[in-house]
Amino acid sequence: MINVLQPIEEGLRILDQTQLPHHEHYLTLTHVDDLTDAIRRLCIRGAPLLGVAGAFGVWLGIGDLSRADTRQDVFWPSLQALAENIASSRPTAINLRIGVQRALKAIEPLRDKSADTWREQALQVAFEIMKEDAELCARISENGAVLIRPGMGILTHCNTGSLATAGIGTALGIIRRAHQEEKDIRVFVDETRPVLQGSRLTAWELERDGIPCTLISDNMAAHLMQLKRIHGVVVGADRIARNGDTANKIGTYALAVLCNYHRLPFYVAAPQTTLDLSIASGSEIPIEERDPDEIRTVAGHPVAPAGIPCANPAFDVTPASLITAIVTERQVYYGPKYLFT
Amino acid sequence: MINVLQPIEEGLRILDQTQLPHHEHYLTLTHVDDLTDAIRRLCIRGAPLLGVAGAFGVWLGIGDLSRADTRQDVFWPSLQALAENIASSRPTAINLRIGVQRALKAIEPLRDKSADTWREQALQVAFEIMKEDAELCARISENGAVLIRPGMGILTHCNTGSLATAGIGTALGIIRRAHQEEKDIRVFVDETRPVLQGSRLTAWELERDGIPCTLISDNMAAHLMQLKRIHGVVVGADRIARNGDTANKIGTYALAVLCNYHRLPFYVAAPQTTLDLSIASGSEIPIEERDPDEIRTVAGHPVAPAGIPCANPAFDVTPASLITAIVTERQVYYGPKYLFT
Repeated sequence: MINVLQPIEEGLRILDQTQLPHHEHYLTLTHVDDLTDAIRRLCIRGAPLLGVAGAFGVWLGIGDLSRADTRQDVFWPSLQALAENIASSRPTAINLRIGVQRALKAIEPLRDKSADTWREQALQVAFEIMKEDAELCARISENGAVLIRPGMGILTHCNTGSLATAGIGTALGIIRRAHQEEKDIRVFVDETRPVLQGSRLTAWELERDGIPCTLISDNMAAHLMQLKRIHGVVVGADRIARNGDTANKIGTYALAVLCNYHRLPFYVAAPQTTLDLSIASGSEIPIEERDPDEIRTVAGHPVAPAGIPCANPAFDVTPASLITAIVTERQVYYGPKYLFT
Repeated sequence: MINVLQPIEEGLRILDQTQLPHHEHYLTLTHVDDLTDAIRRLCIRGAPLLGVAGAFGVWLGIGDLSRADTRQDVFWPSLQALAENIASSRPTAINLRIGVQRALKAIEPLRDKSADTWREQALQVAFEIMKEDAELCARISENGAVLIRPGMGILTHCNTGSLATAGIGTALGIIRRAHQEEKDIRVFVDETRPVLQGSRLTAWELERDGIPCTLISDNMAAHLMQLKRIHGVVVGADRIARNGDTANKIGTYALAVLCNYHRLPFYVAAPQTTLDLSIASGSEIPIEERDPDEIRTVAGHPVAPAGIPCANPAFDVTPASLITAIVTERQVYYGPKYLFT
């Protein structure tokens, strides 16, 4: 297992995912601002892992605040503001907000205790979420592997593995499990522009595990479906609305449309917490718009005229009608009608 | 107009398109092997422009051969072999082969003349094709602009402009013409991985012309169609089969499927010569598979684990059933049934 995130004496030690696959470089985040910056820069990413990061953010934040002013009427509003700041550093992923809120809730009853106790409590919550997430990954993978037929060519998009979770992954967990079950699968990996989580992270994870894979650019999936080399798609989710509409990495919706046209299964894998019951349908999910320079450059190198206008939505929404099944730790949900009811 | 290709004293002077948009760097190709190398490396590309390049290849080739041995029984078989070598340097584009064959055919009746006469003749053919292509572009653009509604958001893929033709372009010619007609269009440009002809070339051409455009990565089109910001797609073609199936840059087929799902028009623009009557349907069109390092790297910089397996088909085939209309210099062909009959 890769050590993507670990509390140490000086703060939070994280694997800087922007440096992969070339360097296994670690950062030590001392202050909460270091963490929100690392989240925005995608040094740490992946919806489930952001849940863990959210709790660690509260842990770091209490440290920062307690060095300033611990009087109740100053401290608690500051902590609330800081928590909101962490939660909104990536607005689409629901897990980040959940992780933050869970840590806050856990320290709420301990208001009369010391800042050290609050920190300890936030740390405990972070560890709990990590442990739970590893278990969720295992159960999602077990549930989902049933859907994978022997000899299947499976396309996945973005990264949903050990770099995105605290376990073996969600969509990539299903792929790992199917490989362990010797289903003789071949994995197709979308490079996932603009940030290339597929070529940099997923390809790296699969190669480490010795799982046969083929890297492609995002515009090749349709052609490989036409040639009957890709037989289905498995992706993760950043937020799922009450009706089953699913927000995930930009490019996911296109794959769902392509599966629909080629009559191939399109599976979404995510922990039950990804479901946001407060949201009726996908149109209400906020879509983060990122820096246009991510489109104008690749890995820091310019590839387009400087200053050319760009669109850079980080996510898109796949309507429930295009999703064959959603796999969670509880079960496989077929069809949008009966989803989560 | 950009001077992409020009015969000079020392050989053929071409704009090295791999250096765009950062440098306007020119190469002088002295030998036919320099040209096939430049074609393979995509220094010069674009189906119509390759037709011109094919004739210039014969011109360069005669020079090479005439320095060796001009006896008829040596020279003519050598020229045939050399012509085949040029034509197969990019196997999918039919225009390249047509350009080569047209030059060969023009010098055939002059067998008893000198090598200098043959060269002169090949050069004339190259100039003829250039002139014709510029006229074809103008007529395709005029025919196609009729299809563009005022205020339309138009997506284009790859590069089909002045860098791909000897005129204003095919698909991009239609866009230019619609802009000249003040139709208040907005152009969306797919970056077109792996070689990024969209971000490097099309964005550069549009910016020079002051046509409003938005650069996106190839996986964003579906999302922008869902948001009703893209209202149709216009692309070029590298080869069109008798039934209307169309080979074009990888990623084109996916866009056609997305248009079909969103009920948006999908237009193909190409000169009539792109139609290959010898081929009944798209399944017979050879698809060039390129170096996997184009996927593992971006603009020369590694972005994936070294040696990871990749697929890299340069083209895909869009079935005629997904094409709303094919625009040529003759007319707009609606529907596959009546295409080219």
